[in-house]
Amino acid sequence: MKRFFQYQLTLLFLLFGLSLSAQETALNLMPVPEQIETGEGQFVITKRFSISLTGDYHERLAHEATRFLRRLDQKTALFFDQHKVSGERTNASLTITVERPGEIRLHEEESYQLRVGTESIEISAQTDIGAIRGLETLLQLTGATNGQSTFPVLTINDSPRFHWRGLMLDVARHFMPMDVLYRNLDAMAAVKLNVLHLHLVDDQGFRFPTKAFPELLELSSDGQYYTREDLDDIIAYAHQRGIRVIPEIDVPGHATAILVAFPELGSKDTTYTLERYSGIFDPTLDPTNDAVYDFLDQLFAEVAEVFPDPYFHIGGDENLGRHWNENKDIQAFMKANNLATNHDLQTYFNIRVQKILNKYGKHTMGWDEIMTPEMPKSAIIHSWRGNWEGLVAKQTLYDAARAGYETVLSNGYYLDLMMPASQHYLVDPAPADMDLTPAERSRILGGEMCMWSELVVPETIDSRLWPRAAAVAERLWSPEEVQDVQDMYRRLAIISLQLEQLGLKHISSRNVILRKLAKSKDIEPLKVLVEVVEPMKGYTRNTNGTLYTTFSPFMLWADAATADATVARVFNEDVERYLSGSLEANQLRTQLDLWSKNHKKVLPIINRSPALLEIESLSENFSRLAVIGLEAIGLIESGGKPSSGWVTQCQQVLEEARESGGRTELQVISGIAMLVDELKGL
Amino acid sequence: MKRFFQYQLTLLFLLFGLSLSAQETALNLMPVPEQIETGEGQFVITKRFSISLTGDYHERLAHEATRFLRRLDQKTALFFDQHKVSGERTNASLTITVERPGEIRLHEEESYQLRVGTESIEISAQTDIGAIRGLETLLQLTGATNGQSTFPVLTINDSPRFHWRGLMLDVARHFMPMDVLYRNLDAMAAVKLNVLHLHLVDDQGFRFPTKAFPELLELSSDGQYYTREDLDDIIAYAHQRGIRVIPEIDVPGHATAILVAFPELGSKDTTYTLERYSGIFDPTLDPTNDAVYDFLDQLFAEVAEVFPDPYFHIGGDENLGRHWNENKDIQAFMKANNLATNHDLQTYFNIRVQKILNKYGKHTMGWDEIMTPEMPKSAIIHSWRGNWEGLVAKQTLYDAARAGYETVLSNGYYLDLMMPASQHYLVDPAPADMDLTPAERSRILGGEMCMWSELVVPETIDSRLWPRAAAVAERLWSPEEVQDVQDMYRRLAIISLQLEQLGLKHISSRNVILRKLAKSKDIEPLKVLVEVVEPMKGYTRNTNGTLYTTFSPFMLWADAATADATVARVFNEDVERYLSGSLEANQLRTQLDLWSKNHKKVLPIINRSPALLEIESLSENFSRLAVIGLEAIGLIESGGKPSSGWVTQCQQVLEEARESGGRTELQVISGIAMLVDELKGL
Repeated sequence: MKRFFQYQLTLLFLLFGLSLSAQETALNLMPVPEQIETGEGQFVITKRFSISLTGDYHERLAHEATRFLRRLDQKTALFFDQHKVSGERTNASLTITVERPGEIRLHEEESYQLRVGTESIEISAQTDIGAIRGLETLLQLTGATNGQSTFPVLTINDSPRFHWRGLMLDVARHFMPMDVLYRNLDAMAAVKLNVLHLHLVDDQGFRFPTKAFPELLELSSDGQYYTREDLDDIIAYAHQRGIRVIPEIDVPGHATAILVAFPELGSKDTTYTLERYSGIFDPTLDPTNDAVYDFLDQLFAEVAEVFPDPYFHIGGDENLGRHWNENKDIQAFMKANNLATNHDLQTYFNIRVQKILNKYGKHTMGWDEIMTPEMPKSAIIHSWRGNWEGLVAKQTLYDAARAGYETVLSNGYYLDLMMPASQHYLVDPAPADMDLTPAERSRILGGEMCMWSELVVPETIDSRLWPRAAAVAERLWSPEEVQDVQDMYRRLAIISLQLEQLGLKHISSRNVILRKLAKSKDIEPLKVLVEVVEPMKGYTRNTNGTLYTTFSPFMLWADAATADATVARVFNEDVERYLSGSLEANQLRTQLDLWSKNHKKVLPIINRSPALLEIESLSENFSRLAVIGLEAIGLIESGGKPSSGWVTQCQQVLEEARESGGRTELQVISGIAMLVDELKGL
Repeated sequence: MKRFFQYQLTLLFLLFGLSLSAQETALNLMPVPEQIETGEGQFVITKRFSISLTGDYHERLAHEATRFLRRLDQKTALFFDQHKVSGERTNASLTITVERPGEIRLHEEESYQLRVGTESIEISAQTDIGAIRGLETLLQLTGATNGQSTFPVLTINDSPRFHWRGLMLDVARHFMPMDVLYRNLDAMAAVKLNVLHLHLVDDQGFRFPTKAFPELLELSSDGQYYTREDLDDIIAYAHQRGIRVIPEIDVPGHATAILVAFPELGSKDTTYTLERYSGIFDPTLDPTNDAVYDFLDQLFAEVAEVFPDPYFHIGGDENLGRHWNENKDIQAFMKANNLATNHDLQTYFNIRVQKILNKYGKHTMGWDEIMTPEMPKSAIIHSWRGNWEGLVAKQTLYDAARAGYETVLSNGYYLDLMMPASQHYLVDPAPADMDLTPAERSRILGGEMCMWSELVVPETIDSRLWPRAAAVAERLWSPEEVQDVQDMYRRLAIISLQLEQLGLKHISSRNVILRKLAKSKDIEPLKVLVEVVEPMKGYTRNTNGTLYTTFSPFMLWADAATADATVARVFNEDVERYLSGSLEANQLRTQLDLWSKNHKKVLPIINRSPALLEIESLSENFSRLAVIGLEAIGLIESGGKPSSGWVTQCQQVLEEARESGGRTELQVISGIAMLVDELKGL
């Protein structure tokens, strides 16, 4: 009801031209809260800043409040007198009041109210999980006024738009050590994400510490897997931050790692070797073999014991069924059981698997292929397929919601595809204009980002996730109306710096890689270049999935590039402003002048580092583009006419600059092309 | 014998002016090997680079050779065909031949021979540990010739000068999580260190996972301690790299953490609270109480079970005995047992403790205070006291060696004191000119760096250790004659970059901290300033041990500064070169000009970041120094005479610039003073 009022209010703002978004986003918060009422003045943070806890809360609140205190002390360098937050305290600066201990479960209450006054601050929430969300908001509000650290006076009422705000990490294709998980959980909490989904098994590796089947770890992990203690630690660490953890054991496809140890469970009479390449492979469990279900029963019992969440992800995706087609016994079984298609056979499999999970008190979750008429409505359908799979984006999401399933969106949120933040940001799981009943809409639980790790290693995963994941986190938490891309980018740059303080390497890893490639600390020219390129997008970087193996060195040029080349984006916008008369030529010229000379500085670095040979033409093209840009501006400014061959020549350079180099692509081509186009007609 | 020949050879080189050091160090190796014979040509590394293992080796060699392969692939980006090294292989590029499996023990053989030819490479060693040392040498030899990655043709015969090449980490005062230990073990292996000493208990925390005394973890760890699995993992990880791990449980002093849980074991009838400050504190175990020995017996049994190394460090340092003096029962006990002094009482304690350790098959190791006539000669004396403690540096080391003890030097190797690398580098545990018999000399096992963590946190420990630790590693491995400080610094800069590729944050953490302090990515002016300062040295940063507590935010300005301000060192040298006529004025002017304008750029950053207020006068003084420098050069160049008050005014500025700011000190004062001095007499 309150929510409805908020939406109405928002609509009112919009109608009267008062953008709620503008008012809210001036505070640099991400995600933007549901409602903000700004006030006058500041709360001044001093050495005596202290926190008091009241009400009935889970002990995790004391831990998180202490962590908040330490983080605020890091920001302000005030050396707080209070060392730990442990309970009630008189005259505290910040009082947190909670009604009841939160539970780490789907649909748990996460709303909070934050009131900052000049003399005191209050966070009140129904659950400590809500209060923990409020602490993250307060931390983001830390500012400075007249040489003092301050919070602005305001009142925030906030609650999430969606209950499922997730991140899937593929720890199978490249194993991710504990420190990667820890720091990324910290980052998730900072932007109010609440589900970590671990993709534990795939063709390239088995990472769950099964006791029943030690062969899996011995033969299919390369020695890289979590121990029970590791998983207990990760779950506790996540729960501490109000984050659920969902395990995935992907079956019946993506089964190479399992079949390396147990070929007899496969659909083909052969031996298997652990997959080292990327792609969709044929090894598949045999759904007609009872031993498969015995195996899964034992394995799932172990997984269910470790992960307390009632949801259990069984994958179920990308089974092309080739080995089923080739196997006469399986074909005979299908006939005998009236299973007309491979899809029917997989349904048969899923239903049996689902019964095993029921035995252990778990609900099934699976990629959208598991949605068949026989699948019980207690399952969660994980919508991932879209245009690239020949479907309409979000179609399986809406189909699931209409069919009565709860459902989660991942299509549009595959961060490993290296699309810019803006693209993911505008994907909305349940926009108001969708043709869904309120009941159907309520079944859309939210969204989940995916980080598949074919091309991602522990050293680079942070820069593949962040800061873009914060933009998606906002989509899943904030009101639908918050959609200003420019403002998102502005705030994202600020949040990105704050995330670094949690130990994330998304900013620092670039220079680490460049120093490695340059074998030197002098990397300025490489930085100039890497700032205007983005890695090849989608699945194009890894041609046919065969350019790289799991052992390839993934600290290459493309790994120093990120999905959003901010410098290039701003340059392209500047060109537009210049051509529309709102920017001086000189600002562009200074930048282009630097760029035009950059290749000369890059060359000696390449000459002493063979690993950089792959960027020689990229670097040259970049400087050639800059020269064209300078020439074009010269002509525009002087009102001159280009010589007959100039435009043709420019277009050839622009064409050549479209070639990738070092598996990255130049992002300033459109800006330069605009300048050339301006002279075309003359 | 072979070693002796080497020394003779070195002497020969030195006599004939052929510096062995110059010949060896041209290859940028650190530590410098014992003997190098350079050849003609290069081995070209290609995609088909492969490794074969032969002989009788421990399985760790296959793991380390695989790790070498991955690291070399990261350096060359060649995407090697070979994924894992598992045994013999025909036509391999690199053949490793080992005579017997090495054992992780003191005095184990670590020598190796490395032969690089144009077509093949061979490493041969008595043990796989020697071969692993050779792999690190080979990796450091990776270079580039004509656009290809190469190794230079050469033969290296190498063996360590000392058997004990250690690093002590104080994980008690600030807990260091597993990832810190892992990456520092990688770095240790890269520079051939072979002992990790974990200081597990101190007044500020108890970090050993005792099962017998859960109260210790509950009350004295703040929830931060290693699990058994953690320690097993760390030991295995270290052993994999040929590194021993020594535990330390510091008794009878430094006992606050123990007494918080068990006050009845203390020498004073009181309750104890976990220490949050730095210093030498009074809480001490009661040596007259049999319950203390029962407690230690159970605790040491557990520690002995986890750590396989036969040496067990019992601390024994810095017991002032105040609580003993105050306790009448203890005084009576001393009288009754003819123990005249506190030192005698501690000896009584040590002898009883030593017997407990014997029961568990352990030798005693302890700080030099444990050396008393009654201490058995099987103990290792850890020499740490020196000038600051009113003794002659290394005196306890030589005393121990003469008395028949094996001994290890740490005095001079306290990296937490933030002295420059050069200072630690020139400390030699057993220089040839020392008056020791060969037998006495052989008892000097080597040295161990100490990283006490009063002011060090996981985010900053790497930059406090590295790259300086590599210089000490060289002292402990390389021939005594390798002592060229300039060349050490030249190679250290190269090794530092290589160490970063192991995941160390010693380079990247500076900018992370500056971005935090500036709340921005634009940190250039802060970088200019931080590069010419060093943290206050010795124990001066933390006035009386009370400026900071264990909860203080240690990502401050001083934490972005490092012990070697290279830019300042080079500037001061440049001034000398300028004054001696071997450097043009303009080179100094360009730098001074930038510096003179730096404060204007720093000011707006300070204004929006209260945490930087502490560097305002530091920054201003820095720019004022630069102005003086420019004026001085102007006068020198023009042959002008300074005005009457100019020199006085300069001296005042120089004096003021000596004031610390942000707990750091400007390092360019001597260079500027030299310029002013040049004009003084005129």
